[in-house]
Amino acid sequence: MDYQKLLEDIYSQVLPLAGEGKVADYIPALAKVSPDHFGMCLNNVDGEVFAIKDADVRFSIQSISKVFALAMCLAVKGETLWKRVGKEPSGTAFNSLVQLEVEHGIPRNPFINAGALVLADIMLTSFENPEEEFLAFVRELCGSETVGYNDEVALSERETGFLNAAIVNLLKYHKNIECDVERVLRFYFQMCSVEMNCMELAKAFLAFADHGGDFRHAGIELTRSQIKRMNAIMQTCGFYDEAGEFSYLVGLPGKSGVGGGIAAIHPHRYAVAVWSPRLNSKGNSVMGMKALEILTTETSESIF
Amino acid sequence: MDYQKLLEDIYSQVLPLAGEGKVADYIPALAKVSPDHFGMCLNNVDGEVFAIKDADVRFSIQSISKVFALAMCLAVKGETLWKRVGKEPSGTAFNSLVQLEVEHGIPRNPFINAGALVLADIMLTSFENPEEEFLAFVRELCGSETVGYNDEVALSERETGFLNAAIVNLLKYHKNIECDVERVLRFYFQMCSVEMNCMELAKAFLAFADHGGDFRHAGIELTRSQIKRMNAIMQTCGFYDEAGEFSYLVGLPGKSGVGGGIAAIHPHRYAVAVWSPRLNSKGNSVMGMKALEILTTETSESIF
Amino acid sequence: MDYQKLLEDIYSQVLPLAGEGKVADYIPALAKVSPDHFGMCLNNVDGEVFAIKDADVRFSIQSISKVFALAMCLAVKGETLWKRVGKEPSGTAFNSLVQLEVEHGIPRNPFINAGALVLADIMLTSFENPEEEFLAFVRELCGSETVGYNDEVALSERETGFLNAAIVNLLKYHKNIECDVERVLRFYFQMCSVEMNCMELAKAFLAFADHGGDFRHAGIELTRSQIKRMNAIMQTCGFYDEAGEFSYLVGLPGKSGVGGGIAAIHPHRYAVAVWSPRLNSKGNSVMGMKALEILTTETSESIF
Amino acid sequence: MDYQKLLEDIYSQVLPLAGEGKVADYIPALAKVSPDHFGMCLNNVDGEVFAIKDADVRFSIQSISKVFALAMCLAVKGETLWKRVGKEPSGTAFNSLVQLEVEHGIPRNPFINAGALVLADIMLTSFENPEEEFLAFVRELCGSETVGYNDEVALSERETGFLNAAIVNLLKYHKNIECDVERVLRFYFQMCSVEMNCMELAKAFLAFADHGGDFRHAGIELTRSQIKRMNAIMQTCGFYDEAGEFSYLVGLPGKSGVGGGIAAIHPHRYAVAVWSPRLNSKGNSVMGMKALEILTTETSESIF
Repeated sequence: MDYQKLLEDIYSQVLPLAGEGKVADYIPALAKVSPDHFGMCLNNVDGEVFAIKDADVRFSIQSISKVFALAMCLAVKGETLWKRVGKEPSGTAFNSLVQLEVEHGIPRNPFINAGALVLADIMLTSFENPEEEFLAFVRELCGSETVGYNDEVALSERETGFLNAAIVNLLKYHKNIECDVERVLRFYFQMCSVEMNCMELAKAFLAFADHGGDFRHAGIELTRSQIKRMNAIMQTCGFYDEAGEFSYLVGLPGKSGVGGGIAAIHPHRYAVAVWSPRLNSKGNSVMGMKALEILTTETSESIF
Repeated sequence: MDYQKLLEDIYSQVLPLAGEGKVADYIPALAKVSPDHFGMCLNNVDGEVFAIKDADVRFSIQSISKVFALAMCLAVKGETLWKRVGKEPSGTAFNSLVQLEVEHGIPRNPFINAGALVLADIMLTSFENPEEEFLAFVRELCGSETVGYNDEVALSERETGFLNAAIVNLLKYHKNIECDVERVLRFYFQMCSVEMNCMELAKAFLAFADHGGDFRHAGIELTRSQIKRMNAIMQTCGFYDEAGEFSYLVGLPGKSGVGGGIAAIHPHRYAVAVWSPRLNSKGNSVMGMKALEILTTETSESIF
Repeated sequence: MDYQKLLEDIYSQVLPLAGEGKVADYIPALAKVSPDHFGMCLNNVDGEVFAIKDADVRFSIQSISKVFALAMCLAVKGETLWKRVGKEPSGTAFNSLVQLEVEHGIPRNPFINAGALVLADIMLTSFENPEEEFLAFVRELCGSETVGYNDEVALSERETGFLNAAIVNLLKYHKNIECDVERVLRFYFQMCSVEMNCMELAKAFLAFADHGGDFRHAGIELTRSQIKRMNAIMQTCGFYDEAGEFSYLVGLPGKSGVGGGIAAIHPHRYAVAVWSPRLNSKGNSVMGMKALEILTTETSESIF
Repeated sequence: MDYQKLLEDIYSQVLPLAGEGKVADYIPALAKVSPDHFGMCLNNVDGEVFAIKDADVRFSIQSISKVFALAMCLAVKGETLWKRVGKEPSGTAFNSLVQLEVEHGIPRNPFINAGALVLADIMLTSFENPEEEFLAFVRELCGSETVGYNDEVALSERETGFLNAAIVNLLKYHKNIECDVERVLRFYFQMCSVEMNCMELAKAFLAFADHGGDFRHAGIELTRSQIKRMNAIMQTCGFYDEAGEFSYLVGLPGKSGVGGGIAAIHPHRYAVAVWSPRLNSKGNSVMGMKALEILTTETSESIF
């Protein structure tokens, strides 16, 4: 498979969508990103790397950070993690408080905001220097020491993050947050503020594409079975209330973020990252979704 | 892989669960099934068949019939089908009216009851003799001319089917049912009443395990892409509000029924059917779920 | 108080609203009513009657019939009635199934459709000839032997009554309906189809304006305390999800119907009925609501 | 009417309920109140005062403070107030976030917590020294200069007030809070912490029992119509999700608090306050509810 040519073909096919959707504008730092970026990178399990366009331009990974947080929590808590967060698709918008209230403070899965806030709380009580250790883990996964937090984004998110503040208070009310709510919010937004480019993201996700060996990075160890299970959760819960649509059209486990990035995995084969800032009404990148749909259609290779 | 030995090992491992869960008892015809049955059958893409225990005893396939109905609707309607039913996981119990009301009569996916009632309505307007054509399709898929409806079960379900009657009336109110509500209910329950054994189910589902060729059975044609997409929907929506759990533990697309049957697929490899009547609180077979979890753990082969 | 002059003043004040709102059009029989009618009648406890305009033109009382049904059920069941229906305001649209599902088949109050369907079921099991006895009761209350059902309306409602059919099936599923669902629906729609004019309605409701004596009409007996309690329910639940608004603006217990009628009571003083077919978005008569607001404002006499 | 004797009779009748229910214990300051208190006081419009037992023992008025806050907001905002808060009964538990989310940040009424938090925000932007002016208003209404805040209670509520913090953040997210969330929470809990006894409460509420004259207290002016409308809101919304029950059993507008107090009004006749700390499952005083039911039953005088 000539992936390089395929990525270039994909780009020409998604180009007509370039004006569709709109950039996340709830904080100035995100709103000012040029909407016209497009980058894509695929790393296969043989160690080859294929990249096009803005694959080397960093952007705010936002909710994609939840995958790294889940890996760290699963490593330290094992199956007991699921006492505090579920693993079922949410069926409603990613930030719904309704479900949380009905289900008495147990978030539906770790990839909705409520679930990731619980992950943040777990990390704060499990790691000595959670900010440093999270960054060290991400850096080792992607092989870049210059990946870091964007403090301006993190602060800006906190200042306007009333919905997440509502969620973490509701979780605390239901006794599913141990730490101070402000501490949890700050750390959560810090993780979301990490900036990476598609090349770094694809390399980082390759570690989750099961290639038969161990997962051991920066002190975080996961069994092969745990890696498979993380992929299962990405498959059913990775795209807010568009998880079914993504599974239907693309057929790969993955995770998206409101910065316009999407990372996905074809187990045993490759990891792929795509970035384009304009989002559809569900909060997923318009060109990114289409690019991945074309990728699995052209290769006739989804996991199904 | 010695699948025959594996199935026998699985049986010995799930045996300790034999007393857990309870048989569906909402109609007498289901309640009278002996709770101690266990059958399992695996058909691989090379044409080999591996079966143990009660793999040749027929049972009520119930909601597994929704997969066959979806195949027929997708074949005649194509992508326009999704105007009348969604493809997102439901996130709530399989029979919830709440979501239906909030979303104005578009069922979340074709595998919740509301969605399957819409499928029934579509079939009634698309096929000349829907009861006959559905049966002909199922018979050709499983290669058995003796597979048939159980009229006693169908009638009994209709007599006590007040929740489904509520759902179809609500759908009709939202103008998402064309036919007479009674006609839709009768046909829906008729499809659910089909009786098959694990050998027949595994053979029928093998047609959905993509092996590179066409899907053309009893006049129903699906493209390779459509087959993949059906599997994606089974993956995200096939197990009511336990879809995430099944995906996490088993990692295969599949569909369960309250008769205690589960059919699942490993694309390009095999189809597997398991049956044990005792259900967990979510309506899925206790021993069946566990048997499939062991299958993918022992073979280290889930789709992830 | 010169009520005759007041009614005429009110009419001139509400006239500018004559074109606002729209006539209920979900069945042809209601849709064909001329939207320009306006009638009003006030009966005080001294036996005086004040009427203007179309006060003698009959219309479909629709949900106002629920008050008569409640009186009959309360008379035969007493406080045990409240095991099958609540007495709290619904807080949501009058036909919401959500609440019913969440609360496991106990309707929030007797004046939402679900509650009135339970009343219909109770009457079917409590009276030998419920259709006749209901009509006899209404006729005696209003003093007119010519008041009757409109069979065309009742049939037409049944034919398009999918939402009510959904509700009664859901109630049956939750075991809060004893009779056959079709029987309940027919009787419910029959009661709604009664036609009365404002003079008849005001006279009928005068029986609920506590004047110190017994309530004993056509064999239906209620204590003084029960009459007060019926008024309390009209106050908190009589206007769908606009009960608070009506209580705020008008300050009288009452009940509205989608035929455009409203009947209200000032305990110890008078009963009043008003009719104008154009409805606001909540299903209450635009001119009727305003007329009653002016009535209590001009007289400085609400119950508060 | 010999009210003094009646109150004593009532006490002997409610005494058998003395052990039922439990004291609010979500903060230590409330939990430590002796559960065996019972006080009651009735002030009629002729200026007579009737009091029994612990009518002179102060307690935490909690949500009863919402009535005073509403009066102040209605005085400064008039009908424009209703752009930011509704006036319909809530139909769900007093602290439900579900409704708030579904209705995009407009609380159902001013007496649920969400509504009162909006009132607090309005007061913070409308009064120069809101803490002082609120206290001055309450002191003038009840004629006691020693009535004051309990800072320990207010602080303790804030420290554990995660649900209210969730609500105010959600309101802020929906742009229905202008001030800083922490400021709003502090002021809200400050108002709730006011301590009064039944004699003071009954006197304060007498101002809302329309006796034909103006409402002008500590600079707060309300028209006669506004007073009636406040009573209407107390009637439909004053008792959380037990408003219908209270209306049915007692038939007076009123407001309860989790401190065990209830204040109610018979327009043109009297105001009454009762206090007993043990609460039923809905958060209303067991003995207090019963005492008021007996009061209106014995006098045959509800508003209905």
